[in-house]
Amino acid sequence: MSVTFAQGFTAAGVAAGISSIEGKKDLALVVNNGPLDAAAGVFTSNRFCAAPVQWSRVAVADGHIRAVILNSGGANACTGPKGYTQSEATAKTVAELVGADASNIAVCSTGLIGELLPLDHVLDGAKAAYLALGDDDAAGSDAAHAIMTTDTKPKTVSLEGSGYRVGGMVKGSGMIAPQLATMLCVITTDAVVSGGQLQAALTAGVDTSFNRIDVDGCMSTNDTVLLLASGASGVEPDADEFNGLVAKACASLARQIIGDGEGASHDIRITVTGATSEDAALACARAVASSNLLKCAISGNDPNWGRIVSSLGTVPAQVAPYDADNVTVDVNGVRICENGGAGRDRSEVDMTPREVHIDIDLGAGDAEATVWTDDLTHEYVHINADYES
Amino acid sequence: MSVTFAQGFTAAGVAAGISSIEGKKDLALVVNNGPLDAAAGVFTSNRFCAAPVQWSRVAVADGHIRAVILNSGGANACTGPKGYTQSEATAKTVAELVGADASNIAVCSTGLIGELLPLDHVLDGAKAAYLALGDDDAAGSDAAHAIMTTDTKPKTVSLEGSGYRVGGMVKGSGMIAPQLATMLCVITTDAVVSGGQLQAALTAGVDTSFNRIDVDGCMSTNDTVLLLASGASGVEPDADEFNGLVAKACASLARQIIGDGEGASHDIRITVTGATSEDAALACARAVASSNLLKCAISGNDPNWGRIVSSLGTVPAQVAPYDADNVTVDVNGVRICENGGAGRDRSEVDMTPREVHIDIDLGAGDAEATVWTDDLTHEYVHINADYES
Repeated sequence: MSVTFAQGFTAAGVAAGISSIEGKKDLALVVNNGPLDAAAGVFTSNRFCAAPVQWSRVAVADGHIRAVILNSGGANACTGPKGYTQSEATAKTVAELVGADASNIAVCSTGLIGELLPLDHVLDGAKAAYLALGDDDAAGSDAAHAIMTTDTKPKTVSLEGSGYRVGGMVKGSGMIAPQLATMLCVITTDAVVSGGQLQAALTAGVDTSFNRIDVDGCMSTNDTVLLLASGASGVEPDADEFNGLVAKACASLARQIIGDGEGASHDIRITVTGATSEDAALACARAVASSNLLKCAISGNDPNWGRIVSSLGTVPAQVAPYDADNVTVDVNGVRICENGGAGRDRSEVDMTPREVHIDIDLGAGDAEATVWTDDLTHEYVHINADYES
Repeated sequence: MSVTFAQGFTAAGVAAGISSIEGKKDLALVVNNGPLDAAAGVFTSNRFCAAPVQWSRVAVADGHIRAVILNSGGANACTGPKGYTQSEATAKTVAELVGADASNIAVCSTGLIGELLPLDHVLDGAKAAYLALGDDDAAGSDAAHAIMTTDTKPKTVSLEGSGYRVGGMVKGSGMIAPQLATMLCVITTDAVVSGGQLQAALTAGVDTSFNRIDVDGCMSTNDTVLLLASGASGVEPDADEFNGLVAKACASLARQIIGDGEGASHDIRITVTGATSEDAALACARAVASSNLLKCAISGNDPNWGRIVSSLGTVPAQVAPYDADNVTVDVNGVRICENGGAGRDRSEVDMTPREVHIDIDLGAGDAEATVWTDDLTHEYVHINADYES
């Protein structure tokens, strides 16, 4: 259903010859046909941010975006002034096509860092995508396919509010770490909302979703999440319901990224409870989520609690106060670590499900936080050792 | 040459039946026969530190250690009061054998977390090791073999000072990250030095060696580095020379750990220059060293500078001020990234040597720092997915 689930949006995905994979759809266009063109964005904090990020950050700053053009097959990152000129030229071409100002066009790119895009292909692709625009499921699906890189499947969401809709698509598979994951995401709604309302909803939604997943601890140069509102439903939503739906859309798309993590054989949910603050819980959950040793053990179906507590033990006491002797760890519901030492036998843990639940109780307070990650497999190494060489 | 290279030390390594590998040497004993028994130690900062670490930290606090007993085959970590009793019993047995107080015996363990040791085997092994003590190369080599776990080779060092000697051994292969690596290390000297001098030399030496290597970002519960002085040479060393030799011994042993990193096919030296401070340089080098994506790319012989700068870009500006547009990156002497963008073609880089040199110039100041890491290979995943399951 993707971005076209909400009324007022058309989309397309075409093969523009940008990707090195012959015939792959690699260019997507999402157009907001109004009546509103409200928009909000959240971008990577990486200091080597890509040209399209530099462009789009400015474009969305006034709360208005008419269209988003996205390409896979090249990140246009670390490409200097020439790269920026490419993003600008792309925006201008789309602006002419849709009859808008270039400053209301967002540009997103994903792929290899350090190389310019084949600009002719991008601009010709933009025209082809404009001619292919549609408002049906197929058009939304084409767009979701066109932004995939190492993703093995498209990732979309569609949610019904009270008289309005929220739809979205995301790409992301490797180089996934907070803050933000290596990802491009467009969420659309036909609710009647302002850019300010959108920004508040998006910032909150991203904070508990895309900022709490970690495939490989690597932060990208191109991460972009956009939220666009057409107002086509004519419905002014209840603020709480709307914020909740946006958060739910972000959470669903983030969960789909983890489900398609590069080479992953297990999706791992790490929940830390009993912390003195949410920040403390989050620091502990992130420390565990970033352990290569644990991620390898999980890929070998080993609920190795020693690797959980040794990661937990790296969090400084001033960040997360707790007594190591009070810590318990449950894996898939079996308490294999009790009072900081061995609990029930690890052989009791059923590791066959794809989803693995690690529940850590620090026994120090009432706050909690959850982070999702993937296991570390031979396939992850294969994908990333053989990617462009 | 190992720990017996310095005069006044005897050592042994025996198969005590602690390891699950039949017949593997798994227990080492190092005895300081004096006339001095000065000692210093540096230990893991992990909050789930193992029982032997808790014991040895106290034992070395007064600057005197007569003997060190080390076992592989079990970490005795997260084993609670029972684990501590095991370390204490082990120290008492060694104390009786060598005619010392138990408070002057250090205990080190390495292996699986969360299980008690087979104490009878440890105590019987201590007696067997005592009977096997020798001051020759073979005895030092046996001890270095006995502390190996996933290490594929023993790691030792021997250095000549002006009339005195420094020798040492280390184990460590996976779960290697600053602060300290997953490692046990004993360095010996026959110089006439006090515990305070030893501690100063060791702390400084560790800071620029073991604290600057990172195999997999995982900090252990058992890390211990001990420096023992017998005074048997009768020589009071020049302080600068002595500190330099200790630092050199630490650097040699740390480098050997990287050379034997789990599954590694490349040893990667990351040097950051042009930083505003050493801390800034170090933060940048550590960020690059911890990138799984880069480590996979290197294992695929791909000098992927995009993954270097995207890691560099995650270091906050307040930690390391620099302008992304001024950054250069050389891999094995070829400047493949210039002014934050593409430089010479990456195909010019010869990636066949085991040692890979990544030189990053931030162009912001005069400070620099170096960190060593390994690449991330199929073999690393294999070792850690299949380790005890």
